Amino acid sequence: MVRVIGVIGESAFSDPEHEALAEDVGRRIAAAEAVLICGGSAGVMEAACRGARRAGGLTVGILSGIERAEANPFVTIAVATGMGQARNTLIVLSSDVLIAIGGGYGTLAEIALAFRYGKAVIGLRTWEAGHGDLRAPITVVRSSEEAVRVAMQIAGRGPG
Amino acid sequence: MVRVIGVIGESAFSDPEHEALAEDVGRRIAAAEAVLICGGSAGVMEAACRGARRAGGLTVGILSGIERAEANPFVTIAVATGMGQARNTLIVLSSDVLIAIGGGYGTLAEIALAFRYGKAVIGLRTWEAGHGDLRAPITVVRSSEEAVRVAMQIAGRGPG
Amino acid sequence: MVRVIGVIGESAFSDPEHEALAEDVGRRIAAAEAVLICGGSAGVMEAACRGARRAGGLTVGILSGIERAEANPFVTIAVATGMGQARNTLIVLSSDVLIAIGGGYGTLAEIALAFRYGKAVIGLRTWEAGHGDLRAPITVVRSSEEAVRVAMQIAGRGPG
Amino acid sequence: MVRVIGVIGESAFSDPEHEALAEDVGRRIAAAEAVLICGGSAGVMEAACRGARRAGGLTVGILSGIERAEANPFVTIAVATGMGQARNTLIVLSSDVLIAIGGGYGTLAEIALAFRYGKAVIGLRTWEAGHGDLRAPITVVRSSEEAVRVAMQIAGRGPG
Repeated sequence: MVRVIGVIGESAFSDPEHEALAEDVGRRIAAAEAVLICGGSAGVMEAACRGARRAGGLTVGILSGIERAEANPFVTIAVATGMGQARNTLIVLSSDVLIAIGGGYGTLAEIALAFRYGKAVIGLRTWEAGHGDLRAPITVVRSSEEAVRVAMQIAGRGPG
Repeated sequence: MVRVIGVIGESAFSDPEHEALAEDVGRRIAAAEAVLICGGSAGVMEAACRGARRAGGLTVGILSGIERAEANPFVTIAVATGMGQARNTLIVLSSDVLIAIGGGYGTLAEIALAFRYGKAVIGLRTWEAGHGDLRAPITVVRSSEEAVRVAMQIAGRGPG
Repeated sequence: MVRVIGVIGESAFSDPEHEALAEDVGRRIAAAEAVLICGGSAGVMEAACRGARRAGGLTVGILSGIERAEANPFVTIAVATGMGQARNTLIVLSSDVLIAIGGGYGTLAEIALAFRYGKAVIGLRTWEAGHGDLRAPITVVRSSEEAVRVAMQIAGRGPG
Repeated sequence: MVRVIGVIGESAFSDPEHEALAEDVGRRIAAAEAVLICGGSAGVMEAACRGARRAGGLTVGILSGIERAEANPFVTIAVATGMGQARNTLIVLSSDVLIAIGGGYGTLAEIALAFRYGKAVIGLRTWEAGHGDLRAPITVVRSSEEAVRVAMQIAGRGPG
């Protein structure tokens, strides 16, 4: 069965380094022969798709709007939902594991949904959250290499 | 126009005090003549609905499942969505402001969605979240009285 | 438990008589002490809500958009979904029975969903559909009085 | 840009000939280098995916449930929605054109949604529907060859 790695993160870069991180994450997902799924929009999503496509990978964009043409140009398969942020649930459910890079409130919502549905989240410069004794169990990593290596281990097929 | 206050929080109480807080929040929402909207399930949702109904209020439950009969017994109007956690978006979009009490990952997802859609969240013993310089701007309150008073101010009609 | 009657139909009248039919259906739903649920938009939906509200009833609008302000002025409780036509499923699931008046393709989709989920549909000048030996089992009625009388029987509480 | 053909139809065959038709439709979609999108379940959906995969094509299943493992074995990319029949909207929005084969009420709902969103539907032994002067403008075809040929013309790239 195909391994699917979700990539979530900000649609406008809060830090210029996030673009290179996202693109390298995408490239490494493709190199690991996994499918990349994301929201199909700009920012982290576009950079990750660009990296994956340039490495010969397959990318799926779960779009918030009703037009496939809204997908970034590096999306292979665009699923138009017309559901706005409610589409985040589909990205989470359709991924074996998620990698979060930076991110605004939409990304935080996706991280929380992932834990709600029992999926692991690997975080690169992303949210921390907690209350009382509860901490959101994000697996914090330091590099795009580590992010994809850990993701593929969780997805059940290490890259080497 | 009717004012609508969303109440979000855990479906199983992590702290026994949360039940009394939720019930009193519900009671005060009804006393302020606002409609209470929530996920229609157990825990904080049920306690808040119970408080509202006993005070003569109207409660709306946006259910994750496909059966209206799954609603807690204090829901006046049950909207069955069959959408699982994707229904959280509807609770956020349909509220003027949200009050979060305690809560697990579903609650965190709702808080994040609220900020994503520009709604205010008032928090009673709930999540804190941040990364880099970004903090989730939850309005932290100390009591059910303060929660509903602030919520009604934001919703545009103070209770007195 | 509250009885909920869904009203579905065209958002722009294809026949001027449909407006009076829809308004009278709404009035009779309120008189039967049932809640009216609909898409909250114009045409049949607005006329039915107007009839219900003028008779003292409660109306729920499940909106396609993200703004509660898009509801017609006779909606008591507006649920904003941001889901476009995917919100039709919620109207069907949240109703005990549906009354269809006139209608375009959105109405046909709701009729079909109703049968898919095992709900009855009462039709006033609405779609017929079939293929092979299969006919969509719409209960065809001739008047608004008959429509609501049959609907309330199916919903489990006849009006008298 | 990739051409995407939606295939909709019954999940249990009402006529044994429908299986061969669906499989041949899938095969021809793959031969035309288009992507096949469907609900990812059994019956027409599985037969069409099988035909496409055996011809080297790519298939996308938009699942009603929350588990990718529920997809039929010929789905390449499974998008788990957890939305039940509300996922039909996504199949319609994500297709250039739809081919309907046989079908129950879910198929009728998809046909209606397609017209609601301005997509063409090509029908093989499927629903007819109308009321007043309005007929659902299904393009009726007689063979799987004709179905895919017309679909590809509409999608903007004829097969040869």
